[in-house]
Amino acid sequence: MSGKVMKTDPGMRRKTNPSFLRKAAEAKVCIHKKAVRPEGLVRIVKGDGFAKAALDGEIEALPGMALSRGERVILDFGDHYVGYLSIKLSASGSHQDAPAFLRLKFAEIPQELLEDSESYDGWISRGWIQEEFLHIDSLGGWVSLPRRYSFRYLEVLVLDTSEKFKVCIEDAVLEAVSSASLEPRALTYLPPALQRIDRIALATLRDCMQEVFEDGPKRDRRLWLGDLRLAAKTNYLTFGDTELVKRCLYLFAGSTRDDGKIAACLFTEPEPECDDTFLWDYSLFFISVLHDYYMETGDEETLHDLWPSAYRQLETALEDMEDGVLKESPEVITAFIDWKEGLDREGASQGVWIYVLRQASALASITGLPGQADWIKGLLDEALRKARDVFWDGSLCYFVSRPSGKASKITQAWMVLSDAVTGEDARSLMLRTVDDESLLGVMTPYAYHTLVEALLHASTGPEDLLRKKALDMILSYWGRMAEFGADTFWESFDPEDPYASPYGNMQVNSFCHAWSCTPSWLLREYFPANQASRPPSKPRCSL
Amino acid sequence: MSGKVMKTDPGMRRKTNPSFLRKAAEAKVCIHKKAVRPEGLVRIVKGDGFAKAALDGEIEALPGMALSRGERVILDFGDHYVGYLSIKLSASGSHQDAPAFLRLKFAEIPQELLEDSESYDGWISRGWIQEEFLHIDSLGGWVSLPRRYSFRYLEVLVLDTSEKFKVCIEDAVLEAVSSASLEPRALTYLPPALQRIDRIALATLRDCMQEVFEDGPKRDRRLWLGDLRLAAKTNYLTFGDTELVKRCLYLFAGSTRDDGKIAACLFTEPEPECDDTFLWDYSLFFISVLHDYYMETGDEETLHDLWPSAYRQLETALEDMEDGVLKESPEVITAFIDWKEGLDREGASQGVWIYVLRQASALASITGLPGQADWIKGLLDEALRKARDVFWDGSLCYFVSRPSGKASKITQAWMVLSDAVTGEDARSLMLRTVDDESLLGVMTPYAYHTLVEALLHASTGPEDLLRKKALDMILSYWGRMAEFGADTFWESFDPEDPYASPYGNMQVNSFCHAWSCTPSWLLREYFPANQASRPPSKPRCSL
Repeated sequence: MSGKVMKTDPGMRRKTNPSFLRKAAEAKVCIHKKAVRPEGLVRIVKGDGFAKAALDGEIEALPGMALSRGERVILDFGDHYVGYLSIKLSASGSHQDAPAFLRLKFAEIPQELLEDSESYDGWISRGWIQEEFLHIDSLGGWVSLPRRYSFRYLEVLVLDTSEKFKVCIEDAVLEAVSSASLEPRALTYLPPALQRIDRIALATLRDCMQEVFEDGPKRDRRLWLGDLRLAAKTNYLTFGDTELVKRCLYLFAGSTRDDGKIAACLFTEPEPECDDTFLWDYSLFFISVLHDYYMETGDEETLHDLWPSAYRQLETALEDMEDGVLKESPEVITAFIDWKEGLDREGASQGVWIYVLRQASALASITGLPGQADWIKGLLDEALRKARDVFWDGSLCYFVSRPSGKASKITQAWMVLSDAVTGEDARSLMLRTVDDESLLGVMTPYAYHTLVEALLHASTGPEDLLRKKALDMILSYWGRMAEFGADTFWESFDPEDPYASPYGNMQVNSFCHAWSCTPSWLLREYFPANQASRPPSKPRCSL
Repeated sequence: MSGKVMKTDPGMRRKTNPSFLRKAAEAKVCIHKKAVRPEGLVRIVKGDGFAKAALDGEIEALPGMALSRGERVILDFGDHYVGYLSIKLSASGSHQDAPAFLRLKFAEIPQELLEDSESYDGWISRGWIQEEFLHIDSLGGWVSLPRRYSFRYLEVLVLDTSEKFKVCIEDAVLEAVSSASLEPRALTYLPPALQRIDRIALATLRDCMQEVFEDGPKRDRRLWLGDLRLAAKTNYLTFGDTELVKRCLYLFAGSTRDDGKIAACLFTEPEPECDDTFLWDYSLFFISVLHDYYMETGDEETLHDLWPSAYRQLETALEDMEDGVLKESPEVITAFIDWKEGLDREGASQGVWIYVLRQASALASITGLPGQADWIKGLLDEALRKARDVFWDGSLCYFVSRPSGKASKITQAWMVLSDAVTGEDARSLMLRTVDDESLLGVMTPYAYHTLVEALLHASTGPEDLLRKKALDMILSYWGRMAEFGADTFWESFDPEDPYASPYGNMQVNSFCHAWSCTPSWLLREYFPANQASRPPSKPRCSL
């Protein structure tokens, strides 16, 4: 949607830290496996918004169906899973006298099965569409597909047989995989609609937890730092798999640009290697993920190992700043913040800067070299001053962002989350922000999360209206996805335009995306069973 | 081309002879393997008749080429082979950030690469088109394709990458397979055009010799009895792999209809099983293949084992006959003979009947039960009488076929080959037949072979004009395929209409078909280095 593309550095040189990569490999992450069989046969029914799946037959009928050229069947595995498919095929009629030619299409949501991959015109690779074209020379026995898929629905279309035989599907089994361990406790004390959202959010995170926290198991299947921050935080309150976070931290620190700058994302295949894409806020979030990990685990060894990498992100962040403020480029996206068209990112980025400086300050006081804490303190003081002097518009009573001078909801949210504004000022700001349609809104679940977290962060007690506003937003945004039939939450969702895609075509959208899993965190942190058990607003760090 | 389809018996019951199938499995057939690398890069150039491949680059340039979306490269492996492809891929540019999506298309002849499989409209399975759609999640290393292909040219088309990476082909290797053992001696004493035809015919047979004699290694990849007769005969004079013939004989006898009738063809995967297609002449050719095998090897055990199966084919053949003559059906093809449109098959079938009765008679005298030889002798006498009484037209001086009463070249040829007419009568008949355009001609290489063999069979000495006519036909038919660029001879070829296909679309034609390999037999048998070393016309059998 944005005309701008992310900042890349294709000519960069990389630096590897073999000791960190070894520690990443040695982190105790176990892939749990579960055999799942389809539960029913469905057909896809067009409707308002997205298509839906309607029961079309008992699964017991499947082996008796004989499919000719052009015929298809859709198997429903009952829930969203990530894993490996095996399918048992046979021929009926005369002996198979030609290769059977099949198309298998894997879909996270029913709508994907109505889309035509031939006419795909998006601007990222068509290779992400989960479909395979298979020639089976000798039907009779199991065919195991080597690739991993992320799906609930499997459509088998017979592209061709011959006049003499038809294709039967005798059985199908999915080996579902995830590194998420225990089953989190359900939030039975919440209203059903919120419980449902929590269940979907947990499934989302579960399916993104693999060898690393993947952004989306369908696409991109890799580790992004900003996404990791949200997934890791949600994980602490749900599955509690801290070793997976540790692995991701060591991976990011183990492959960097030669100046130590950590990339926005990292590939793990064939070998761990950082991407050449850089996002100013994502690099800084390495500090945030390390901070949260240490607060959760107290793991001194990891903190001491990785603090120098974290500290380096502050130094390299300054290269994109001028006078204490991020310098936006007209051509490329320097900081991510959100995909929202027309968004100026300098104001929100100032909030991010303050947010991570506070966390860096906390870590420096534990493990930093002499002088580091003072240097950070100096940056923080300047950042807070600039937030006020450069971005606060006293007449509008909003933080406005450069260079356009427009106010956006996400800027207010980050200023509140970073405690650039606190107490009643923060509360009042969020109360105005949430319903003010003159402010530029947000687009991604990632940014919706920021907004909801800021509402909750600024709230002052159990009965605060801001908490109701936060729940309303969870219900109207994530709840709307649930109404559309989501089994896992999506990378991108515009309630006004459900077909929207950040890539020009919804076929390559990820419908299970880790950055959408945060309701499970927010509900557990801000709406615990016993309201008194946690403070309504948790301090950002232990300072 | 023919409106008629082959006769099938889909409701039939099968009978298995485990002892025969075990002997088939134990036959000493070895698959020889050879690593072949591409020799050059080519492009396809349209021309008169079929397209041709033109050099488009040195193979050394291949690893340096980086292919983006929509780009392709065609690798030329230098000759036709059958085997398994491994291809070494890598990414260039930034780290691969999406699955690479490739289409690999394998072509026996350049023309196949100009055809569009999407628009395929033939009446046999599109599954025969040799193309694969591959998603490669992590480029870097070898990809080995599990299926076997029959090809010289490999087109790699990049369906999609991303903006960040391109696809490189670092290496490719074909593991070529064949059970043909020794390299046959070249016919260096013949003119270059005939030597070339012999080389192409030998490559054809070599590539069809696998676990069995396949009709075509691209399509159908299975054992047909009529095709086996020609392949086995050519094999005795070239590669000399008699065990492969033995295996095929035991396979056919090991899986039959429950009344012992041998099917027109047999599947070997997943287990040996006869097809439900029956061709009157093909079933009878079991006798012929057994006869030729015994004459070549003197293998008494196999003869004694299989004579009852052979004898049974005479008995079941009678069920399709009336008054000593094949009874043609208006709906289905009962005997194959040729694909030629408008062909009446009764006359040629009478020749086939006499031909196999003579061979059966020879075998019965060696191994038959009391009375069998006499019974066969009675059938032969009747068959010869019917050939004269029913089919000979004294005014036309041709054998004419029922039911149309038309004369065809193939009918004259089979009558001559079966010695229903001999000596100067046969010679005169073939001399008139070969140039008489009022006779219905032939279509397939299978039938062209019959015609050429009949010319040679009727010739009376080294200087006989019939021998020149036979060579002219080899040069004008097989030689024309060679001029079109054939590396192996084709299943189907009409010099007037090279795009013709018996299946409505040339994409599924087989361009390496065993029944086209017979020039290597005919040249060796009838044009040996020392003309005196073999009789000009070899007796059909040892009677």
